[in-house]
Amino acid sequence: MITLAVDSAGKAAGVAILKESQLLYENYLDNGLTHSQTLLPMLKSALAACSLQVADVGLMGVAAGPGSFTGLRIGMALVKGLALPQNILCAGVSTLEAMARSVYLPHGSVVICALDARRGEVYAAAFQVEGDLVRRLMPDKTGLPQQLLAPVMARCKNPVFVIGDGAEVCYNELKKIGPLTLLPERWRKGRAAGVAYAALDAWQQGKAVQAGQLTVAYHRLSQAEREREKKLKETNGL
Amino acid sequence: MITLAVDSAGKAAGVAILKESQLLYENYLDNGLTHSQTLLPMLKSALAACSLQVADVGLMGVAAGPGSFTGLRIGMALVKGLALPQNILCAGVSTLEAMARSVYLPHGSVVICALDARRGEVYAAAFQVEGDLVRRLMPDKTGLPQQLLAPVMARCKNPVFVIGDGAEVCYNELKKIGPLTLLPERWRKGRAAGVAYAALDAWQQGKAVQAGQLTVAYHRLSQAEREREKKLKETNGL
Repeated sequence: MITLAVDSAGKAAGVAILKESQLLYENYLDNGLTHSQTLLPMLKSALAACSLQVADVGLMGVAAGPGSFTGLRIGMALVKGLALPQNILCAGVSTLEAMARSVYLPHGSVVICALDARRGEVYAAAFQVEGDLVRRLMPDKTGLPQQLLAPVMARCKNPVFVIGDGAEVCYNELKKIGPLTLLPERWRKGRAAGVAYAALDAWQQGKAVQAGQLTVAYHRLSQAEREREKKLKETNGL
Repeated sequence: MITLAVDSAGKAAGVAILKESQLLYENYLDNGLTHSQTLLPMLKSALAACSLQVADVGLMGVAAGPGSFTGLRIGMALVKGLALPQNILCAGVSTLEAMARSVYLPHGSVVICALDARRGEVYAAAFQVEGDLVRRLMPDKTGLPQQLLAPVMARCKNPVFVIGDGAEVCYNELKKIGPLTLLPERWRKGRAAGVAYAALDAWQQGKAVQAGQLTVAYHRLSQAEREREKKLKETNGL
């Protein structure tokens, strides 16, 4: 089975193709352009490089959040648009789980994946590495690093590593609690291959869905929604 | 400075672009086609994706061996052909060093990089990971795993990891000597970003050269040369 995966949750865009569990193709692009300009051409190049067409794809994976709201919508719209007419199964995967699968860490390691959510907060989750797989230790959450991650740090006897663009803020807060390793910047990024492997795993667990059922997991209200809520509260308070 | 790197030493082809030390672009393709069909289009796509032209490139990196003889020649010819007319500096880097820089390993780890050289032999080298850098522990050598690598294993107190398409044969031989970890297959491959970082390092050390001075490091006679030698010996023996 061919798995085609798309990552547009962060600043960089990525496309990956697996044949069964073998990586045929991966592309990573961090050129500063918006995903709406880069993602579709990247996807077309990826298929062409592997002599494949959309109809050959058995599963489409997409980073479904947390992440940049606009980025997530672009990736999701692209995947839905391609998958729907051909009835291709889809798996929307946690951006944080995909990230945990984007870097090698020794068996038994605990990896904290954190995305910057601004205002000192992060989107974060923790996983334990088990060979080629990762086991989730907590659900994706949004909040202050210490609040979210102190319980994992307290329970954990294994080496802890932290990645993602929220890694540095987490590291600075969590190193007070216990030892952990901040990966060099080069290794902190999510890769589309991570999305692909997470999607394949979801499919194997029977969790793939029809394109129409894919949803984005924002893990926070959008700025417009937050401002509307604030305004409504103020109006009610008058 | 823009660094453009090419990896065609193994089965998969790769192209990467750095801006200073930041990865702008990486492409990995393992579609079974020959590098002579895939590499130039990949390189053109890479430059186009980053809105760059060959003239913008300040340094070209290439995996210069060990590896597939034909693959090495294709990569080398491509880099020379592009770099020569524009006087772009080049760095031919050890495929094994580039591989050591292709996967994250914790600080202090020792990584054995091994490529299958057939007949039970490997091309191998060992490096110690120091943050984002690697320090070479032995030169690239060709031979039986135990012969080449037993001295490193004996000296080494740090965790040892083994990667490359010769990793499995090394692991099976070397696990008799001491503990070491065979990375899951997905993490054993070299990446063009590893070539790019090794090339940038060589440039920083003043080791970049003019395209005309680039040479391939085969680390072994080609099959034709070996057969000619054998024939000459037989003729002389008559």
